[in-house]
Amino acid sequence: MEVISNHNNGSTTKIILKNGSIRNGNVNGNSHSHEKIENKLVECTNSIKPGWFSEFSALWPGEAFSLKIEKLLFQGKSDYQDVMLFESATYGKVLTLDGAIQHTENGGFPYTEVIVHLPLGSIPSPKKVLIIGGGIGFTLFEVSRYPTIETIDIVEIDDVVVDVSRKYFPYLAAGFDDPRVTLIIGDGAAFVKAAQPGYYDAIIVDSSDPIGPAKDLFERPFFEAVAKALRPGGVVCTQAESIWLHMHLIKQIIANCRQVFKGSVNYAWTTVPTYPTGVIGYMLCSTEGPEVNFKNPVNSIDKDTSHVKSKGPLKFYNSDIHKAAFILPSFARDLVEF
Amino acid sequence: MEVISNHNNGSTTKIILKNGSIRNGNVNGNSHSHEKIENKLVECTNSIKPGWFSEFSALWPGEAFSLKIEKLLFQGKSDYQDVMLFESATYGKVLTLDGAIQHTENGGFPYTEVIVHLPLGSIPSPKKVLIIGGGIGFTLFEVSRYPTIETIDIVEIDDVVVDVSRKYFPYLAAGFDDPRVTLIIGDGAAFVKAAQPGYYDAIIVDSSDPIGPAKDLFERPFFEAVAKALRPGGVVCTQAESIWLHMHLIKQIIANCRQVFKGSVNYAWTTVPTYPTGVIGYMLCSTEGPEVNFKNPVNSIDKDTSHVKSKGPLKFYNSDIHKAAFILPSFARDLVEF
Repeated sequence: MEVISNHNNGSTTKIILKNGSIRNGNVNGNSHSHEKIENKLVECTNSIKPGWFSEFSALWPGEAFSLKIEKLLFQGKSDYQDVMLFESATYGKVLTLDGAIQHTENGGFPYTEVIVHLPLGSIPSPKKVLIIGGGIGFTLFEVSRYPTIETIDIVEIDDVVVDVSRKYFPYLAAGFDDPRVTLIIGDGAAFVKAAQPGYYDAIIVDSSDPIGPAKDLFERPFFEAVAKALRPGGVVCTQAESIWLHMHLIKQIIANCRQVFKGSVNYAWTTVPTYPTGVIGYMLCSTEGPEVNFKNPVNSIDKDTSHVKSKGPLKFYNSDIHKAAFILPSFARDLVEF
Repeated sequence: MEVISNHNNGSTTKIILKNGSIRNGNVNGNSHSHEKIENKLVECTNSIKPGWFSEFSALWPGEAFSLKIEKLLFQGKSDYQDVMLFESATYGKVLTLDGAIQHTENGGFPYTEVIVHLPLGSIPSPKKVLIIGGGIGFTLFEVSRYPTIETIDIVEIDDVVVDVSRKYFPYLAAGFDDPRVTLIIGDGAAFVKAAQPGYYDAIIVDSSDPIGPAKDLFERPFFEAVAKALRPGGVVCTQAESIWLHMHLIKQIIANCRQVFKGSVNYAWTTVPTYPTGVIGYMLCSTEGPEVNFKNPVNSIDKDTSHVKSKGPLKFYNSDIHKAAFILPSFARDLVEF
């Protein structure tokens, strides 16, 4: 796959496909992707009761969150995963991948605001940003609030996620139309490995869980490639699971990051009402170079409100939420500070 | 109902019944209460699938949390509500009232540690404490960590909750056996109304939701009685629902509290993995008198560890969690600071 990270000055997104070819224009429900996937409504064999979606997973055995479906809008199988999108009774539209909730319109914003503004709020004047995953477009939407940013590369493995999201979350699609953006449809781990060393100020890993296509994004070779692709004093923020469910996995991730990132290594968390156990964690790491103190934001987006006119106000994140994200309950603090 | 708030020096709990009579001794599965309730296993008509408990409620329409039941331990109907207790697959024992989860062994401790240590950590040397509700015994267990406390009155409306909890959570029952404790089986709102004015240093309202027997505990006459029963500069902490579900109700509660409490009025929250939306809120108020700054604990229980030997360490609460509990996401902050 050819890696192009210059930004596109046109008004539509530059999209680099897996075969290296480039296409311009908006991806939507009529693109090639919809033809190649099986788009037929299938029975939710595991649902709580007829008309409800239930989230069962080996990652959270013995518990399940369920949402009432008002209308099923899309259901299909991409090359990588099952993709479903429905209008829920109380949380707006909901996107699930392999049966796990990725985004809900009325409950998903804490996850995205925090995964973006913790790292970008911690360095002065970010210019070059890479997003791994995040095909829904919400991460991109939040990243594009920063006026200092010149280049945003986003690498999503599954073009069906992009296509479906752009069709059903059109207000987020505005992020894809930002002329600073290049969308690469491909493998995030391979993209980072091939990236120009020291190129990015910040890398945001907006991945799904470590079962399925995101598996590589939780392992050490990936973190090593991320560290290489960052400038000295550059920052990475990765989705890092729930302290209630995956403390063992989190400890492994932290141990790996401590080996790889020679600046600082921190664990943060926030609340998300529609994720299992109601919380999600993040790894915040920096490379050797100018010191990054993640716990005290130097570039908090709530201080510069120039983005609010076009993007609307932040709903969840503020400078105090930023600092509080690093405060852990005793049981987790004891396990994280090993 | 006779109100007796002197503490009992005996080794068993003093229990004041609704008819005003007093009995001594441990309440357990063989007490009178179990005979009078219908204790038969009934079909969970609303469960997610056979062998699972599902939490449907008009208070959180369109969503439901479910837990796999390993073993149903108790199911019955008290004078006030449906009471169920089961061993879950992953969260230990679970107590539900009217189909709503009140406590899970492995996920319920944030709620209890925070509802107790926010108010008691905010005043120096608390001596007289009243708990409304909290028949499970966990709130009492946490209150009894403070060596300065001389008197703990606990008023629970439903003796079945006490009986079932003492049988199945025996490690919490130790709180009831503390000689400083008087357990009153009766109506919390009436008890507070009849209490000696200015008597208590702190009142903790560990109630269920405002549908059912706890309804009065969310209304202004109750708050007025609480303010009267507190000493000048005394503190109250009440369960105050979820910012994701009940912002309208929370605004009403705050408005009522601002009318009634002339010291300070604050809203705090914390995460609880087994409560709807994964969070729960608290109202923290103080009466006119010595100033109480809830946001900066003066008596944090993690500084004095004398209680750890008999009670075990705190799992969730620490001084930093205390301060972070008052930091709200932007959408809630804007609504709370009206």
